[in-house]
Amino acid sequence: MSNPKEAYQEITTRSALESSIARETAAMQQDLDLRLKQLQNGVSREGADAMLVTSNVNLLYLTGVIADAYLLVPAVGVPVRFVRRRGDVDEREGVSVRKPEDMPAWLADRGIPLPGRVLLEDEDISASDWRRLSALFRESLPGSGLLRALRAVKTPYEIEVIRRTALRHTELYRAIPRLYQAGMTELEFSAEIEREARRSGHLGVFRAFGRRMEIFMGSILSGDNAGAVSPFDFALGGRGQHPSVPVGMTGGPLRPGTTVMVDVSGNWEGYLTDQTRVFRIGEIPEEAYRAHRVALAIQEEIARRGLPGTSCGVLYDIAVAMAATAGLGDRFMGADRQARFVGHGTGIEINEPPVIAAGSRATLQAGNVIALEPKFVIPQVGAVGIENTWLVTETGMEKLTAAPEEILPLD
Amino acid sequence: MSNPKEAYQEITTRSALESSIARETAAMQQDLDLRLKQLQNGVSREGADAMLVTSNVNLLYLTGVIADAYLLVPAVGVPVRFVRRRGDVDEREGVSVRKPEDMPAWLADRGIPLPGRVLLEDEDISASDWRRLSALFRESLPGSGLLRALRAVKTPYEIEVIRRTALRHTELYRAIPRLYQAGMTELEFSAEIEREARRSGHLGVFRAFGRRMEIFMGSILSGDNAGAVSPFDFALGGRGQHPSVPVGMTGGPLRPGTTVMVDVSGNWEGYLTDQTRVFRIGEIPEEAYRAHRVALAIQEEIARRGLPGTSCGVLYDIAVAMAATAGLGDRFMGADRQARFVGHGTGIEINEPPVIAAGSRATLQAGNVIALEPKFVIPQVGAVGIENTWLVTETGMEKLTAAPEEILPLD
Repeated sequence: MSNPKEAYQEITTRSALESSIARETAAMQQDLDLRLKQLQNGVSREGADAMLVTSNVNLLYLTGVIADAYLLVPAVGVPVRFVRRRGDVDEREGVSVRKPEDMPAWLADRGIPLPGRVLLEDEDISASDWRRLSALFRESLPGSGLLRALRAVKTPYEIEVIRRTALRHTELYRAIPRLYQAGMTELEFSAEIEREARRSGHLGVFRAFGRRMEIFMGSILSGDNAGAVSPFDFALGGRGQHPSVPVGMTGGPLRPGTTVMVDVSGNWEGYLTDQTRVFRIGEIPEEAYRAHRVALAIQEEIARRGLPGTSCGVLYDIAVAMAATAGLGDRFMGADRQARFVGHGTGIEINEPPVIAAGSRATLQAGNVIALEPKFVIPQVGAVGIENTWLVTETGMEKLTAAPEEILPLD
Repeated sequence: MSNPKEAYQEITTRSALESSIARETAAMQQDLDLRLKQLQNGVSREGADAMLVTSNVNLLYLTGVIADAYLLVPAVGVPVRFVRRRGDVDEREGVSVRKPEDMPAWLADRGIPLPGRVLLEDEDISASDWRRLSALFRESLPGSGLLRALRAVKTPYEIEVIRRTALRHTELYRAIPRLYQAGMTELEFSAEIEREARRSGHLGVFRAFGRRMEIFMGSILSGDNAGAVSPFDFALGGRGQHPSVPVGMTGGPLRPGTTVMVDVSGNWEGYLTDQTRVFRIGEIPEEAYRAHRVALAIQEEIARRGLPGTSCGVLYDIAVAMAATAGLGDRFMGADRQARFVGHGTGIEINEPPVIAAGSRATLQAGNVIALEPKFVIPQVGAVGIENTWLVTETGMEKLTAAPEEILPLD
């Protein structure tokens, strides 16, 4: 039986990765090689022979493009991307197959041993896909966690992309005040922000991990709606426009004496940055300004302590303690229902590890990209607080999003 | 051991369905009762004791709202909606549990036998969720197909909602010509259409079945981009703005002498209608008008033959034959790659059964809502053709979307 490594080498020229990589920059090529190498090391650590990747988000992570493909990544050797044939398929797109069941025969024809223990994306594919794909191998193991852990530590090229995205996201936020007109509803104001984002090339698509995180491009919350409870796992809720999208903006009017919290993510190259700013219509009570200052203080304190190795659970406890000391414990991260986190990783999906949450034993690592969002809900007034996307470096947290942080007037 | 039916009756007052139903109209109450009854009949037919529903789309179908919930629907008796507790939960929201593993104990405490054979949503939940939920029961069976089959035949209230949606969708399309300005890119034109939709209350969220159907609100295709191949299963492709969203509009300019195909779905109440219209900039060749007329003829012929009991495969073959007879076989439903379907069911998700596709053995049923979309790609010019959402009735197909069908000039 031929040596798997050599066998894979033989078909390097057919490797589908080549074609997708070829479409990317040299920097990205190098970066994709790094991601693959890290995955292969992980596959080895898990004692598996290979991982089969087929979800859109993980194909994007590993190949830089989304395709109707099955990427077989052996612990050792050259990955093969099998692309589902539909009509003509460019050979360079990869190894053309009609269905996943064709993969073993293709490998056998080339004397490549079929991997025995294979990691599959247990949290990213349906139970039905798992059943179908696991039938191809002797043993299937859960592999989503491995890729989520790898994706939590951004690579150099990913960090470049996220920096670019944060700059464009900042520009978008600087434009927000001039998009407001008196008498607008939450939805009308959102529609103007969405249009501005789209005209700038925003991709619109919002990717989240899990089955409970549906939203359009983001949320606009004002007045009482800021405290409305949602079944989704966002920091704050909002009633939403309809029971089929029970989160975020309503069709209700933006009223004088309320705050308007804008939490619309940035996505220009497949990576999501998260940023929230608070605006006001007319005069709002001092209580709101004070809570906003407390949120900014929490942000600064967490950022100051956010070194690699710091416990996420401890950072959350610090935020809660600061809110309580300020007498705002019952308004921190919601009112009727309080979210139990104050920050989360972000990347290809808006909710990546680590999460700065109650009881979390995770620790920060250099390369984490964290959306930090201390927020308070002030009854009748609305939400105040801040959200920025931060890069965890060896020397501390670097703020990537940079729109002005004070409560700006819209009128 | 108590009789399951009685046991469930005992806790009717706790049934979570009450609360969601209570928020809806009498018509909707009656309709939700009908959907549940049909599901219960299906559960019995499958020889199962119950179905556990937890996906957003199926919770929306069965309760009219999305919640972080597990809806246990016994073959006989009253369903119970278990809602995941987070902070305070309104008792009327349902039976509050911290995790799905709490459900068996809750039933046992009330002398309700734990169902043995339970249908789970194999195609709607992750492999990881399947593993977790199936561990609660003696035997788990694939249940997504049952709900997809039920959802394919719309209920009276769903049909009302879809009629309302189609009217609003038609209004949106009537407004499109005045949203164009000379020199716009595909993306800029799309941003104006998206804004118009959102201002009218469009929910934005686009739901599709399966892991290969990501798009923002819809697509705008002009000139050469109309023939560009996408990895997603839409009728036509488009290069898209970025490899992370490889479908639909680009940032390229809308050029004189090309068609602009607008395929943006309607979603104002959680149900998607599908409608496509073609516009032109300047003069386009007679060849394009001719292909457009052929598409309209195919639409009329399929609509004429689309009676309950008609084979979807046969309807597809008729469309292909008409395209071939017109000498346009190689341009039907794409150029470099041709989609192998000409219509699809639509509802809570854009791709519901039945599909009017090559080799389909499915037959039309009264209550199906079908998006019929014969389209051609004319090299250098763009796409032409039509898409409307139709209701299959006992007496034939009724067109629900009604924007003008001719190729309208934008300038």
